[in-house]
Amino acid sequence: MLIQDACLGRSLLVRLDHGSEIVSQITEIAGEKQIEAATFNVIGALSRADLGCYDQASHKYHVSAVEEPVELASCSGNISLLKGQPFVHAHAVLANGRGLVWAGHLVRGSIFAAELCLQELKGKKLNRTLDSITGLNLWTSE
Amino acid sequence: MLIQDACLGRSLLVRLDHGSEIVSQITEIAGEKQIEAATFNVIGALSRADLGCYDQASHKYHVSAVEEPVELASCSGNISLLKGQPFVHAHAVLANGRGLVWAGHLVRGSIFAAELCLQELKGKKLNRTLDSITGLNLWTSE
Amino acid sequence: MLIQDACLGRSLLVRLDHGSEIVSQITEIAGEKQIEAATFNVIGALSRADLGCYDQASHKYHVSAVEEPVELASCSGNISLLKGQPFVHAHAVLANGRGLVWAGHLVRGSIFAAELCLQELKGKKLNRTLDSITGLNLWTSE
Repeated sequence: MLIQDACLGRSLLVRLDHGSEIVSQITEIAGEKQIEAATFNVIGALSRADLGCYDQASHKYHVSAVEEPVELASCSGNISLLKGQPFVHAHAVLANGRGLVWAGHLVRGSIFAAELCLQELKGKKLNRTLDSITGLNLWTSE
Repeated sequence: MLIQDACLGRSLLVRLDHGSEIVSQITEIAGEKQIEAATFNVIGALSRADLGCYDQASHKYHVSAVEEPVELASCSGNISLLKGQPFVHAHAVLANGRGLVWAGHLVRGSIFAAELCLQELKGKKLNRTLDSITGLNLWTSE
Repeated sequence: MLIQDACLGRSLLVRLDHGSEIVSQITEIAGEKQIEAATFNVIGALSRADLGCYDQASHKYHVSAVEEPVELASCSGNISLLKGQPFVHAHAVLANGRGLVWAGHLVRGSIFAAELCLQELKGKKLNRTLDSITGLNLWTSE
């Protein structure tokens, strides 16, 4: 277990851009604002999305396309550093108007409308490095 | 993109009332406490709910009733101002005991039990005004 | 309604342990760090889980086992005190790679990988006591 204490940094309320890709837009905000660590949530709607599910045996992501307009019923994530650059990790729950629900790792999504609440966390750098047990880039101490 | 910096205000932990309507009760708290902006999450259970899915083509909400007791598996949202009054925007994921899951825009829900964690955000007023592209009341700068 | 004002305490970013049980590990962190109240979210993946749905009529939890690897698409919760000890209350949304989604009260789950963002809240003690109407241990004033 790695427990890192952090201090509260800036709080941002952001209306994301209609038509943009959500993960890259949050990454862009982190770059512009020089945010190295944060926790965030988003609600809104996407016009399409790709969701990933990590295969815990083969260590590969299985990606599924959701090719229709959906509510972004939940989206929570964090920002930390991967190779010195801000990296956005987000999970999401999507739903359409006919009662279908999808959930998983948010690979990408086209924004119809989305409201981001982001809380920057400051302190020691929080880096991701490859973890051989899981095959994922996980948080490590400096 | 509209990025608004905010300062952290009050933090509230609230046991919502059994039998009350969840969106109007959070709106009521915002009014009583004069909260103009906030991010929040709720977990608990509802005895029934109405979930909305926005039709991105026709610009109308399609509302579905969930007429049974459900877990409130996720509920995240924000408070900002609409016509000068605190406006609650919340999305939710619901589940029953037989494996069914619903998700979307939380139009209303009857509280069985619910625990709200709310973080007030202070700063420039964050107003919603009608956005012609999406047909939604979105955040705008003053 | 019980509204408790709180002050922001420590912020923690935690890589939870591969192979550990998620609810007990968050409880352990609360014990070690002497955290009496907090709000948190987690994203990651579990190798299995048990989800509960509270029967609002009989006042019993119905627990369902999810015996397969899943994404932890959403997990939000809080920490407060039950009989003087830190008590973790968490809800979750799970998904596999074949489009199945589960949601509910997170009874337990085996961590494949999980990232916890926890915000401590300080102030008057927030205790859970048995509520006769719902049959649940709910927040009460001292």
